[in-house]
Amino acid sequence: MPEQLFSYQQLAGFVTAIFQKIGCSATDAAIAAETLLSADLRGVDSHGVARLSGYVRLWEAKRVNATPHIKIVHETPSTAVVDGDSGLGLVVAPYAMQVAIEKAKNVGTGWVSVCHSNHFGIAGYHAMMALPHDMIGIAMTNASALVAPTFSVERLLGTNPICVAIPAGEEPAFVADLATTTAANGKLEILQRKSLPAPLGWIQDKDGHSSTNPHELKGGGALLPLGGDREHGSHKGYALGAVVDIFSAILSGANYGPWVPPFPAYVPMPENMPGKGIGHFFGVMRIDAFRPAADFKLHMDQWIRRFRSAKTVEGEERVLIPGDPEREAEKERRQHGIPLLSAVVKDLKDLGERFGVAFM
Amino acid sequence: MPEQLFSYQQLAGFVTAIFQKIGCSATDAAIAAETLLSADLRGVDSHGVARLSGYVRLWEAKRVNATPHIKIVHETPSTAVVDGDSGLGLVVAPYAMQVAIEKAKNVGTGWVSVCHSNHFGIAGYHAMMALPHDMIGIAMTNASALVAPTFSVERLLGTNPICVAIPAGEEPAFVADLATTTAANGKLEILQRKSLPAPLGWIQDKDGHSSTNPHELKGGGALLPLGGDREHGSHKGYALGAVVDIFSAILSGANYGPWVPPFPAYVPMPENMPGKGIGHFFGVMRIDAFRPAADFKLHMDQWIRRFRSAKTVEGEERVLIPGDPEREAEKERRQHGIPLLSAVVKDLKDLGERFGVAFM
Repeated sequence: MPEQLFSYQQLAGFVTAIFQKIGCSATDAAIAAETLLSADLRGVDSHGVARLSGYVRLWEAKRVNATPHIKIVHETPSTAVVDGDSGLGLVVAPYAMQVAIEKAKNVGTGWVSVCHSNHFGIAGYHAMMALPHDMIGIAMTNASALVAPTFSVERLLGTNPICVAIPAGEEPAFVADLATTTAANGKLEILQRKSLPAPLGWIQDKDGHSSTNPHELKGGGALLPLGGDREHGSHKGYALGAVVDIFSAILSGANYGPWVPPFPAYVPMPENMPGKGIGHFFGVMRIDAFRPAADFKLHMDQWIRRFRSAKTVEGEERVLIPGDPEREAEKERRQHGIPLLSAVVKDLKDLGERFGVAFM
Repeated sequence: MPEQLFSYQQLAGFVTAIFQKIGCSATDAAIAAETLLSADLRGVDSHGVARLSGYVRLWEAKRVNATPHIKIVHETPSTAVVDGDSGLGLVVAPYAMQVAIEKAKNVGTGWVSVCHSNHFGIAGYHAMMALPHDMIGIAMTNASALVAPTFSVERLLGTNPICVAIPAGEEPAFVADLATTTAANGKLEILQRKSLPAPLGWIQDKDGHSSTNPHELKGGGALLPLGGDREHGSHKGYALGAVVDIFSAILSGANYGPWVPPFPAYVPMPENMPGKGIGHFFGVMRIDAFRPAADFKLHMDQWIRRFRSAKTVEGEERVLIPGDPEREAEKERRQHGIPLLSAVVKDLKDLGERFGVAFM
């Protein structure tokens, strides 16, 4: 599919303007735009500006509140529960992460569970907020159910990502950002667009049999937990996705399991929802709450260099450190622009016309 | 291989006596025995009494200190670093977990990184210490390098397990205890003993090619991270194992990556070790630091019941909740006894004779 290149600044101006048009304050609109576009910068195209019209449709369906009163509803020195008041997750999540950072400054760590939120973009953006403070950042979220636990034909979990961002010294930070499934849904969407088969171990059909049909989810199939099948440890991916669900939603009072609200506004809400909105969970640990940050960074550098210089299997250039591909994408895209598929460009143009915001 | 059944009490008496014979105090010996045997009770035979003579050999090689002065070397209200003084991990880990629990009582959560320790048995025992306090428990440890990161032919990570234990109400607790590899090393050992092939995706040979030979590790091969290969998400298993390594060892000042000391006393120590002993990491979160424990438990019960009652794939009876198999093993083994292979029984008899402790 043909692509066009846009600068980060061009897109940021447009996205900020659209969020203001739906009623966000200038500050919130800028935060939401930065959060959303961090996905495009880091090469996670499925979670970036391609979803802008999806967020707008959620606002139209009154599932997103553009002027939320985000607040702490319960706290201790190291914990808090934040109610997002149905705000954009793109705004609620940075608020909650900031709460966690302040708590870490005071007592060493901060742990914040969030209810009544919406999709928050990529976990990496939030976790990485900790890095400039010499802190470790952790971010996770639940999401609407697309994943079948081991032995289940029902979809009960989202792709429930976890990100852990760890500062280093001279080396760039370690940033592991992963869906708890074999493959993220975005990768499957790429195969769907190209009508290419999916590798076995990514999806199952409606009866729970392995399938290579990337359209299987439309017929009642499901994504598979990391591991793929029982013999290869899918019960571990299932368990990790479950932990994300419980930390994000049962600690906070959000919806969980099959009751998490869907992202597409046209999909009806689940019945008998037990909580409020989508849930997230954030953690921050101050490095010097354990040991001097300089010592820690020295050893992180040694760790990173040892792994990066490991002998590789034939045909592979190097062993990657988690975060390498995304950081390299960001460098490239900040310099040369962000490529958007023509379908995405058209979608943004339509959106711009509707709200009277010129798209480039 | 023929098996014999022993009661938990029989084995606990014997193991406690052996630990006292190597110089542990009565209290430490009892703690170490309980920790070690929790593996046998929960069906994790590779980590239980079968390893007793391995621990004794570490003591003989002066890698284990039977009378350690375990202490907190740095702390904040929610964090601590514990130096295990080369003690048995079976004793050091419960000490550190208790520190985390006390911190959670005071400020909502407690996070403890441990250096200068040894193998701590199963992660599940330690994480579950939080449950009676209505707290969530997290335990992880690094281990000597048997695992090749994605694209590496070198072994740089241990099987680095993570356990998360979460209390429920009327339902039993959720306990996810998992190695960050496709299969735990213990499962491979079973195939080695039976000379059965391993499934593809568990191990690679010395050149990094997939292999079904369960003896591949002796020839320079490696275990594979959860996911198995890049296409099935092995970079995610690698990232998770790396996080365990960093939290356990770089936060605390223990050894990491390829420098983690091996369990078998006959394997030489790595050169140029950058830290002290093996590292662990523990976390504890008080439920009511987020919301009333009764509300949380009500929703955990609903979560568990929804997942357990999910429609299954043909041929499977039910969807399991993490911790179900281990809890069922414990019930069975407390009632009917713990089965030990004759090779293990012989090993324990030899140990008993040497130390003048009657084995049954």
